[in-house]
Amino acid sequence: MWRDAFEIKEVDLFGRLGRLYTRRGVVETPTLTPVINPSKPVVEPQQIQRMGYQLLMTNSYIIYRSYGELAKEVGVHGILGVDGPVFTDSGAYQLMVYGRVEVKPLEIVEYQVEIGSDIGVVLDIPTRRDTPYEQARLEVEETLKRVREALSLDLKGMLLVAPVQGGTHTPLVAYAARELAELPVGMYAVGGPTQLMQEYDFRELVRLVMTARLNLPWAAPLHLFGAGHPIMLPLAVAMGVDTFDSASYVLYARDERLMTPYGTLRLSEVEELPCSCPVCSKHSAKELKEMPRQERIRLIAEHNLYVLLEELRRVREAVREGRLWELLESRAGAHPSMMEALREYVRYSRFIAAKHPVTRSPVRGLFFTSRLSRYRPEVVRHHERLKYRVERTQDLLLLFEETPQKPFTRAGLVKELMLQDPEIFQVSDAAVLSYPFSVIPLELDGVYPLSQYEASRNVLDSAMDEIAADVLWYVLNKGYRGVVLVYYTLPERLVRKLSESLAAEEVLFLGVRVENYQEVLSNPRPLAARIRAALQTLQDLIRGRLEAPAPS
Amino acid sequence: MWRDAFEIKEVDLFGRLGRLYTRRGVVETPTLTPVINPSKPVVEPQQIQRMGYQLLMTNSYIIYRSYGELAKEVGVHGILGVDGPVFTDSGAYQLMVYGRVEVKPLEIVEYQVEIGSDIGVVLDIPTRRDTPYEQARLEVEETLKRVREALSLDLKGMLLVAPVQGGTHTPLVAYAARELAELPVGMYAVGGPTQLMQEYDFRELVRLVMTARLNLPWAAPLHLFGAGHPIMLPLAVAMGVDTFDSASYVLYARDERLMTPYGTLRLSEVEELPCSCPVCSKHSAKELKEMPRQERIRLIAEHNLYVLLEELRRVREAVREGRLWELLESRAGAHPSMMEALREYVRYSRFIAAKHPVTRSPVRGLFFTSRLSRYRPEVVRHHERLKYRVERTQDLLLLFEETPQKPFTRAGLVKELMLQDPEIFQVSDAAVLSYPFSVIPLELDGVYPLSQYEASRNVLDSAMDEIAADVLWYVLNKGYRGVVLVYYTLPERLVRKLSESLAAEEVLFLGVRVENYQEVLSNPRPLAARIRAALQTLQDLIRGRLEAPAPS
Repeated sequence: MWRDAFEIKEVDLFGRLGRLYTRRGVVETPTLTPVINPSKPVVEPQQIQRMGYQLLMTNSYIIYRSYGELAKEVGVHGILGVDGPVFTDSGAYQLMVYGRVEVKPLEIVEYQVEIGSDIGVVLDIPTRRDTPYEQARLEVEETLKRVREALSLDLKGMLLVAPVQGGTHTPLVAYAARELAELPVGMYAVGGPTQLMQEYDFRELVRLVMTARLNLPWAAPLHLFGAGHPIMLPLAVAMGVDTFDSASYVLYARDERLMTPYGTLRLSEVEELPCSCPVCSKHSAKELKEMPRQERIRLIAEHNLYVLLEELRRVREAVREGRLWELLESRAGAHPSMMEALREYVRYSRFIAAKHPVTRSPVRGLFFTSRLSRYRPEVVRHHERLKYRVERTQDLLLLFEETPQKPFTRAGLVKELMLQDPEIFQVSDAAVLSYPFSVIPLELDGVYPLSQYEASRNVLDSAMDEIAADVLWYVLNKGYRGVVLVYYTLPERLVRKLSESLAAEEVLFLGVRVENYQEVLSNPRPLAARIRAALQTLQDLIRGRLEAPAPS
Repeated sequence: MWRDAFEIKEVDLFGRLGRLYTRRGVVETPTLTPVINPSKPVVEPQQIQRMGYQLLMTNSYIIYRSYGELAKEVGVHGILGVDGPVFTDSGAYQLMVYGRVEVKPLEIVEYQVEIGSDIGVVLDIPTRRDTPYEQARLEVEETLKRVREALSLDLKGMLLVAPVQGGTHTPLVAYAARELAELPVGMYAVGGPTQLMQEYDFRELVRLVMTARLNLPWAAPLHLFGAGHPIMLPLAVAMGVDTFDSASYVLYARDERLMTPYGTLRLSEVEELPCSCPVCSKHSAKELKEMPRQERIRLIAEHNLYVLLEELRRVREAVREGRLWELLESRAGAHPSMMEALREYVRYSRFIAAKHPVTRSPVRGLFFTSRLSRYRPEVVRHHERLKYRVERTQDLLLLFEETPQKPFTRAGLVKELMLQDPEIFQVSDAAVLSYPFSVIPLELDGVYPLSQYEASRNVLDSAMDEIAADVLWYVLNKGYRGVVLVYYTLPERLVRKLSESLAAEEVLFLGVRVENYQEVLSNPRPLAARIRAALQTLQDLIRGRLEAPAPS
């Protein structure tokens, strides 16, 4: 049962650092399991272990077909010549490719137990991308049935993996996941995204994996089948996947293609090898091209394994540091499909915010580089806080464009004005218009990470409408009757947008434009006076002591 | 003279692959020159060469101070124990740090010649960030004077580097560059951005370097002093810098900080080493932390050199493949300062478009992931083309939302409609509303890269206003009197924005919304009829055969 087999140590977004306990030792997750062909490994299993891969995968069905009974004596570890934990697949992939396999479902599970697999899979029916709903439903039921049957066996400590099927039919995926969640399996898996990945349809992949993840027990380990390319490792981990398998490192090598975290390079087209792994440091592209094909394939496979391992390390370190988001955005900038994936991923941001840690030590500042950064869990949480935790105390909202100096109340313009003329802040509620957070009431200024972030102006450029909408929502939700905006770099377009949308809701608005920020810092008095006047004017308009300007 | 010393082989953006000819052999550029302390190198010069660094740098002033005359016998190559090309600095950095140096300007140039430097630098006066304009101007003049004097010497084949000064005073930088452009020096350099880089002010750095680059001869090699961190290599190359020097690999090592392409990691804070370089593959973070400090520093320095080399390789390969832009966007997603730098960089997009190759083989599709992708040179050029190369033939513009299938005239909705009802395309000029290119008239459909691109929907999300503005500009610039927009996923917000802005200019507008794209593909007849009707209506309105709808 997974409860005894898995523990989560750290979380970032949906990414988890964990420990998976198998009967042959602990595996640190997230990890990738290189797939080894039992009859002719391209890279020796021992070497792959030495590189730093703690869990290997091979195919019990191929072993069954080529070794049969014999394998029960030597065991899968004997065949691979390793003693660490081994994960065996069940032939489901063959089932998908060839339509049939020469073994009964229960039989292959028993076989995996008998050859000593540490992690074994039920012979599930992978949902193909084109499978119509009705058939997919039947296949899902069949897979569920097979899992239940397999659980009746004595598994002798082998972790049984239950694959969630349903493919692109997300309601089916959710159903399958909820059903499986009830069963005492050792681990869960998302089945059959290979097609999606071959077609670079990472968006569908996000739907599939997130649907499964959200309907499975959060604390249970999840395997993703066929996610063998470094380009999607950060994303997969960010979706709460704990283990992946990769046969691609060999398949790409046979194709003479080199993996990189950004995509794939054909050896024939490169003049310089792409990284500093032992293979790329020892050999030039020219040498590689000229050596015998078998040798070349082995070296490319090794390179691919090093690249996968490097990306795995980078992702794990990012989770430790709370930098997984930055990694996702960086990767999204490299390929439209990854950007589409991130766009789909952020649709789950409320769920992500629910798991993402509230703070971590050492405290690290957040980076905001684009519109999508505004979907970080910290922002989602902030908006919740704005909804329920902030009270209006005055009729007027005094809104300051965010200043480079933070915390706003302890440095820069806002602080100077507070010293200069405290009363301004008594006759109005003051807040900051922040590129990533939209509105930061000054009383929340100290709350992490509201003054521990760095935002590019690009966030404003690309999310102006969203920011304006948030401000409008805040003003109306709190019931302010007037707004004074103090700004010094905001584009007039945004200011106009704000004043128009507020006017449409009969909220008074005045914009106080600061010509020279530095000058005001050294002498805030004149600005303080202008702000006072603006606030006074709005007060008088509200109290009817002044005639409202005729609508232009 | 640089004309005989440098040739450019390939260009991408402002990035160049080139060959720099020194008297001790050819150096492939862009390249990085690790700075070696002649008296106590942390990593042996020979080893650095073996890693793949073709050009080493050391400091002639330090040699002068510690070896004096003796150095003239053994030569700088004897001191470093290498025979490849060596670049010597002049002590300008010491001048900046200590305020004075114990050598005359002309003297140190002669000294560099005598110790056999292959590339030597004038003792220039680095402009500090805080230097006021007037003083900076005098220093620039002094540097110019020193360059002229140095050119009067017999350089015996040493390439003389002329540093462009002026710092953040861009007019001065432009002036200095134009003056130096007249002189027969061996190479140019941008001086003193070290402060900018320490403060992560990459935006200022872009202003400085681009100003120098644009005012220097395009075909001349350019060195950037103190750009020793991998995070800014892609940017520096994209600005047309050919060589950089890095002492940081050691400075960071002494600080026990590991460089990565995304930033810097303190060894004390990492649990896993960040890459697969020989150092990171051979040692664990734990081992590194526990070994004697000297040993540790050497290994971190080696790691930093491997990382720099890897990034250098990646950048060169990106230039070869025409993928430098993707690399820039990917890096910009990792840090706000890099995003700011990219935002500044795109302000030069017209100049960049002037140098960027029109096409390359093998032809590669372009990736568009964000608002900033719309500043790619190909887009800038397309807008030029729209201005001058496209003629209106009808009163009506028929605008189709871009379809996944390309080229638009040979696949997908547009093609189906052309087959279904060619006349539609005779009574109107047809064009595609493209996320990255805004407007693609069908007659340009075949022109590279207008149907060889992949764009994320994020481009539309983040640039909606810009796209609407471009469409409006196009319609008015060509003088269309009516627009029919056929769309199936465009947000109503954009459609409204378009219809309003067109109405304001008295251009008629009708939006034809497609409910189900796939359905229309299989049976385009009904849609064709709707489009025909819409066009007819606009025609009748224009000809006064129909009354215009009363403005709502």
